[in-house]
Amino acid sequence: MRILGIDPGLAIVGYSILDIEKDEHVLETSGSIQTDKNKTDSQRLLEIESDMQTIIDMYKPDIASIEKLFYFRNQKTIIPVAEARGVILSILEKNSVPIYEYTPMEVKQVITGYGRATKEEVAKIVELSVKYKRLPKLDDTLDSIAIALCYSRNNIFTGRN
Amino acid sequence: MRILGIDPGLAIVGYSILDIEKDEHVLETSGSIQTDKNKTDSQRLLEIESDMQTIIDMYKPDIASIEKLFYFRNQKTIIPVAEARGVILSILEKNSVPIYEYTPMEVKQVITGYGRATKEEVAKIVELSVKYKRLPKLDDTLDSIAIALCYSRNNIFTGRN
Repeated sequence: MRILGIDPGLAIVGYSILDIEKDEHVLETSGSIQTDKNKTDSQRLLEIESDMQTIIDMYKPDIASIEKLFYFRNQKTIIPVAEARGVILSILEKNSVPIYEYTPMEVKQVITGYGRATKEEVAKIVELSVKYKRLPKLDDTLDSIAIALCYSRNNIFTGRN
Repeated sequence: MRILGIDPGLAIVGYSILDIEKDEHVLETSGSIQTDKNKTDSQRLLEIESDMQTIIDMYKPDIASIEKLFYFRNQKTIIPVAEARGVILSILEKNSVPIYEYTPMEVKQVITGYGRATKEEVAKIVELSVKYKRLPKLDDTLDSIAIALCYSRNNIFTGRN
């Protein structure tokens, strides 16, 4: 099966296409949608919608695994991230792609066994768990692989794969 | 000119169509998009997108005036509202509707002259400023008229109308 992992944001949306083949996770591709900070928010949101549609058309994912936001103190950047996430959820729904959502802590818990794992620890697990030609350097893209992997790890034992 | 006023939300989107004819504000129509709380967030967001498209097609607004969110302490409901707002901004942009944004405090300041005006004071000014056949009872719909009126009041002196 094919998983579309998404780390949402207004400036950068990290995404990855992770295939589960037998017991292996194969990174088909990964990248980021980066929007122009000189454009208006609505222009950037429409660009995200349009690029997400292109990715869905091109890779035809079976499911999407996307970061879920949760509210905490002093999280001032949450509004633009939530606006971008709204657009992404809507376009996934429009394309009938089933959506699974995980908070950053759930992703860390599921893939490293520890909810407060560091970025480096998460990156290490991703590197060890996934077959790839080239592993992305951008944090947001790497995070999207972790989010895709979280879906797989969370469901493989329940027989959904 | 024709203004589409929007009070965004995931459960309820209040909207109004306000026409400026000579020196009068005429409420062409107003209403709300209400989404089913038993549906998933992505289903509700897609419903908002689809209904907003219908409203744009039906009323062909010249501009949209929409509530701008701002972050403050303990505002736990901000995430779903921002997600809905993202979807609405994207669909307005897709339809090339120019977007103007005002925070609740700006709306109150512009239409009542006082940024901390009560709901009742805002409703009173709306009632006095707008010609209507029927004034909506729902707060979110009434707020959308105040938001539309804010655009008009904010721009009438700068000669944009």
